[in-house]
Amino acid sequence: MKLLEDRIRKDGIVLGEDVLKVDSFLNHQVDPDLMMEMGKTFYEQFKNEKITKILTVESSGIAPAFATAAQFHVPLVFARKHKSLTLKDDMYTATVYSFTKQTSNTIAIAKKFLTSDDRVLIVDDFLANGQAVQGLTDIIKDAGATTVGAGIVIEKTFQKGRKMFDDQGVRVVSLARIAAFKNGQVVFADEQDA
Amino acid sequence: MKLLEDRIRKDGIVLGEDVLKVDSFLNHQVDPDLMMEMGKTFYEQFKNEKITKILTVESSGIAPAFATAAQFHVPLVFARKHKSLTLKDDMYTATVYSFTKQTSNTIAIAKKFLTSDDRVLIVDDFLANGQAVQGLTDIIKDAGATTVGAGIVIEKTFQKGRKMFDDQGVRVVSLARIAAFKNGQVVFADEQDA
Repeated sequence: MKLLEDRIRKDGIVLGEDVLKVDSFLNHQVDPDLMMEMGKTFYEQFKNEKITKILTVESSGIAPAFATAAQFHVPLVFARKHKSLTLKDDMYTATVYSFTKQTSNTIAIAKKFLTSDDRVLIVDDFLANGQAVQGLTDIIKDAGATTVGAGIVIEKTFQKGRKMFDDQGVRVVSLARIAAFKNGQVVFADEQDA
Repeated sequence: MKLLEDRIRKDGIVLGEDVLKVDSFLNHQVDPDLMMEMGKTFYEQFKNEKITKILTVESSGIAPAFATAAQFHVPLVFARKHKSLTLKDDMYTATVYSFTKQTSNTIAIAKKFLTSDDRVLIVDDFLANGQAVQGLTDIIKDAGATTVGAGIVIEKTFQKGRKMFDDQGVRVVSLARIAAFKNGQVVFADEQDA
């Protein structure tokens, strides 16, 4: 998505070897017009898939997932993160490890919001090591629902998440694919291929 | 807003004396079409106020605040909650006490996303004791920016938040105003007045 790649080039800040900060338009300050364009793009990609629900994880996933849900006119469910959670019968849970923060969280979704009839599109802001998306697919499996695919805003192709989902046969659509960071600049996968 | 009152009557769950659970359409599962209608209503109320930014607090505030930002075509900034936060020069912070959870959080917004030129509309899911909205107005004041008003999805008129903002001259627009819970049912302020 050229609009997004241009915005990453303009406003993204590369920190160290593998961190891209996009807090000026995606995960602290949010550009709603850009999100709505993203939502339309995910809709075009998955509109024939009879999607019944959009799933994401709080908080950074909510804006792009909401913009997508607004296109599909289906409910968005966002998993809540808990540092610790006593087992609850009415929740599906999964443990998600964050490589960036080096901490584990339990993510949870109320069982009543996910049924075996659901055809789910996961939407998240980043795909790096794939832990958050994996947690959501585990929860969807627990519910007997179907993961139709994942719509990712920014994918880091050099981390293992993409391969994990390719291996599982989960269709991943990423709006910007970052192949590397070079001298503090972002190299997109389509530039590298060219 | 009749659409919202009807939805609260249909899907809201009253717990005990003063808790209304709306996790089926507002703060866990989210109905995007309803949120977009709310955003339009806030836009109609504040469209002549030269709003430059929408502010909220993660996570439940993000969906209604995003839908509002999409109408204004201005950025949304959501404050992050921290259990504890070492003082950071580049952040505005405020302490917010939750009566429901009986815990305090520090909320924080990066200074670069709020300037003295900003005319801010706060959007949040609930107004009860007003602690979260007060934290945001404190941050806006620290930045030298202007709080134009607050757009609230559900107000509990019997708790002290509304009076706090009336006393401060902050204009509050609430889409549903709950006057009381009676026998497990919601009594809206407009019914009580009638």
